[in-house]
Amino acid sequence: MSDKVVLLDEWLCMFGMRARIALAEKEIKYEYKEEDLLNKSPLLLQKNPIHKKIPVLIHSGKPICESLIIGEYIDETWKEKAPLLPSDPYQRAEARFWADYVNKMVGDVGGRIWAGKRDELEVAKKELIENLKQLEEALGEKTYFGGNFKVEAECPKLIAWAKRCKQRESVAKSLADEKVVYEFVVDYRKIHELD
Amino acid sequence: MSDKVVLLDEWLCMFGMRARIALAEKEIKYEYKEEDLLNKSPLLLQKNPIHKKIPVLIHSGKPICESLIIGEYIDETWKEKAPLLPSDPYQRAEARFWADYVNKMVGDVGGRIWAGKRDELEVAKKELIENLKQLEEALGEKTYFGGNFKVEAECPKLIAWAKRCKQRESVAKSLADEKVVYEFVVDYRKIHELD
Repeated sequence: MSDKVVLLDEWLCMFGMRARIALAEKEIKYEYKEEDLLNKSPLLLQKNPIHKKIPVLIHSGKPICESLIIGEYIDETWKEKAPLLPSDPYQRAEARFWADYVNKMVGDVGGRIWAGKRDELEVAKKELIENLKQLEEALGEKTYFGGNFKVEAECPKLIAWAKRCKQRESVAKSLADEKVVYEFVVDYRKIHELD
Repeated sequence: MSDKVVLLDEWLCMFGMRARIALAEKEIKYEYKEEDLLNKSPLLLQKNPIHKKIPVLIHSGKPICESLIIGEYIDETWKEKAPLLPSDPYQRAEARFWADYVNKMVGDVGGRIWAGKRDELEVAKKELIENLKQLEEALGEKTYFGGNFKVEAECPKLIAWAKRCKQRESVAKSLADEKVVYEFVVDYRKIHELD
């Protein structure tokens, strides 16, 4: 089996972006395979039979699932370059805590905003702002996620940090383009009559 | 600051049991502090202000939250004894995948069973059995969780494994007693008029 690296992903997926950033930081060459989530490929179903979700990293034919676990795997397998986690166990625990926080407190409510009904949006927006503020308060200059509806006014340090991040090539190349995402969401909401 | 280790926990909590098992495997002396989840201590609110949940490990005054992150911290801090994760990155990713699976697919549905209304129980039980079967199928001899309602008939290897685990002192001393848990749940369901 060759040492080939493949990423099953979908351009809009924030969890996939994590994997893309990690691979870019480590300068690992890989094959990117875009998935159609309404018509998942046999390869995705075979490699992640449990959750059937992207992203899936395939290394030498073996699958690794869940973006945070993919990140740990990449960090442990390609150790020599660009450590993704700090070396100190306590700092590692802190980094893992906030990554987990983003899964629980930002990913879910973010989904409710872009795919939720109009009358549920205000509640979800408020919740997201509160969660982002907690990130901002706790992490100072450190964390991610950008957007509109006054996130910049509410969380200036967070947005400044996100902008700094985007100046890194690994991040800039891995994130979906904001405008394209915006247009996609507008179209999605029209098609599903959410507004 | 001393090197003191404290665990904020609650006897019934399956996530707390993870932390207890990890500490016992490493033979770490620690102070156990039982939390009343209906009246959380100022220490818990101070040490886990974000989620306000147990378990919280406090090492030299600094808190570590979330049971899987506590496990990683314990493994990385007390390296010399009883490794909790395999050394191979791929095997580590697999272990992390199933631990995460238990969080997502067993913890949640388990809660719906013991605190759910009678008419929702059958659906939740079926779901739990399916999820446990997937654990059993994928992990062969490896995984955990025991109980009644025919889990043994449905998942004999899983139960055999759980029994083997319970023969380990670290596990036996860390798990809540089955009968006491059973009585607790029966009382809980009566008090909340769930049956």
